[in-house]
Amino acid sequence: MAGISGAEQGATARARELALRGPRGVNPQVGAVVLSPDGRVLAEGWHRGAGTPHAEVDALSRLTPAEARGATAVVTLEPCNHTGRTGPCAVALLDAGVARVVYAAADPGDASSGGAQRLAAAGVEVVRADEAEGAALIADWLFVQRTGRPRVTVKWAQSLDGRAAAADGSSRWITGPEARAHVHRERSAHDAIAVGTGTVLADDPQLTARIEGEPDAPQPIPVVFGERGVPGSAALHRHPRGFRTAGHELERELFALAAAGIQTLYVEGGPTLASAFIRAGLADRLTVYLAPTLLGGPRTALDDLGVGTIDEQRRLTVTRLEQLGRDLLVEATTESEQ
Amino acid sequence: MAGISGAEQGATARARELALRGPRGVNPQVGAVVLSPDGRVLAEGWHRGAGTPHAEVDALSRLTPAEARGATAVVTLEPCNHTGRTGPCAVALLDAGVARVVYAAADPGDASSGGAQRLAAAGVEVVRADEAEGAALIADWLFVQRTGRPRVTVKWAQSLDGRAAAADGSSRWITGPEARAHVHRERSAHDAIAVGTGTVLADDPQLTARIEGEPDAPQPIPVVFGERGVPGSAALHRHPRGFRTAGHELERELFALAAAGIQTLYVEGGPTLASAFIRAGLADRLTVYLAPTLLGGPRTALDDLGVGTIDEQRRLTVTRLEQLGRDLLVEATTESEQ
Repeated sequence: MAGISGAEQGATARARELALRGPRGVNPQVGAVVLSPDGRVLAEGWHRGAGTPHAEVDALSRLTPAEARGATAVVTLEPCNHTGRTGPCAVALLDAGVARVVYAAADPGDASSGGAQRLAAAGVEVVRADEAEGAALIADWLFVQRTGRPRVTVKWAQSLDGRAAAADGSSRWITGPEARAHVHRERSAHDAIAVGTGTVLADDPQLTARIEGEPDAPQPIPVVFGERGVPGSAALHRHPRGFRTAGHELERELFALAAAGIQTLYVEGGPTLASAFIRAGLADRLTVYLAPTLLGGPRTALDDLGVGTIDEQRRLTVTRLEQLGRDLLVEATTESEQ
Repeated sequence: MAGISGAEQGATARARELALRGPRGVNPQVGAVVLSPDGRVLAEGWHRGAGTPHAEVDALSRLTPAEARGATAVVTLEPCNHTGRTGPCAVALLDAGVARVVYAAADPGDASSGGAQRLAAAGVEVVRADEAEGAALIADWLFVQRTGRPRVTVKWAQSLDGRAAAADGSSRWITGPEARAHVHRERSAHDAIAVGTGTVLADDPQLTARIEGEPDAPQPIPVVFGERGVPGSAALHRHPRGFRTAGHELERELFALAAAGIQTLYVEGGPTLASAFIRAGLADRLTVYLAPTLLGGPRTALDDLGVGTIDEQRRLTVTRLEQLGRDLLVEATTESEQ
């Protein structure tokens, strides 16, 4: 990459690893490495969540003032220019006498951006590195900054003809073990799982991510949408993360989830909730498991989507197509993601 | 192949080509080649349809009695042992003094089989060759012999969520040009196309196979199912093969189609007719085009399939999965084909 030394490239990759040590939440995951002018690693840092020092300040805190002076700070995200619970990182880097700053993703915040400009104006060499990888690292956080809400994946399983159950409501195991294992990995890859109260009352799901050989897989927090309460006997009460409840004003509830640090939401159903998210234009990604079977009848996997005429159809872009055992997985994005 | 000379192998392949010159219909397509004892081709023949000579008799008719004596007859189907509109081929071969018979597919008929046994009992060398390819050549005819009805392919196009149209019934072009071109090739590969009167009244389809660059593609005959009549102004009246009508007793109608020489039927819809075939267990193969779009609402591509509870689901075996432009093609067989 033009203008970046080999040592700085290595430090950028290392900073991304460090970033992932921090928690997902309201703040982005950020990592930093401080290098001496000749390219030795002097200190590492990462952000441990809201209210704790930012990554570059965490790294600087491990150095003597003499070590920091003239050093290079390599950071996965543009140093902030904003006084929140901590002071602006741009000022901390200036105060420490850092001579050069290499950063990857730009800070999209209205209040927090401008750090790179401030540093450059003060005579620090500021170099942009590895923008795509820096942005990918915090893609979900960037989505929340742009939209104010979590990125929403709506998942359902259906027969080839779009039914979730037979006429009497029976449906267990229409998909095979490979598809069910995939669902557990998907759960674990999201910050929260949404279900409707109807699903809780009908199926009493555990909503944990159970992955073979990974007992410590991250557990998303369940969010139960709907007006009916969760029964005291529900399995959800034994969920390791507890659960949240939410009303039916989806957009307002999503804003609240984002404010609570939830960047990604996995909507598991049932048909009423999945359809409500799609109808409201709040489904960004779809994960659909198609079982090689036909059911016919009234129990469709989705219900009304507000499509009165063909011009209102909800066009998708298929991003992945895979056979999972006997089932078929279709991943797609909606127009909100295109 | 054990016991078969190189000349006989070549003649078997040639006989298959000759077979395809004959028409599809009530009788199987059969080809024959007569070889001299030293392997030279003496005559070729094929069956031109019910009431005309069988392939081996057609070939023998081109020879002098002296040429036929001691020759080898290579046939794609076991010589028949049955007197219908023509005499038994086994007897014709014996009368001609043929010394050796090589055949591929066995004759499954109750009345017509036993030709090989009769020839062997009379001292002719009888050898079985190339069974799989011989059977593949007349797979549809063999299906009709086994079941008494045509092999049925049910086709439909749907949104990913299983709808054929938006709430107001509008649906044109939910699939793209590649899927539509594929439908025309599929039409041409079947002997007949079935539609319901509802589809005729709603869409006024031409039901011709229109394939780019193939103006002479075979045209299946349309069959309109239902009690309502076909309007005098319908485009179907201009179909190059005319059209047939059929009532709603599907199995009886299928027997009648088989008796008319229709070996394969392509059920194009709409939802009522497609569902009726599946519900009756009369759908052998499915061809489903999935458009990357969601419609929701009441207009499902299939309606009631008689699946009251999950144990009654109609399990499928996916035999092909292909992306056709932006659409997805799923081909499957039902349990009747498994």
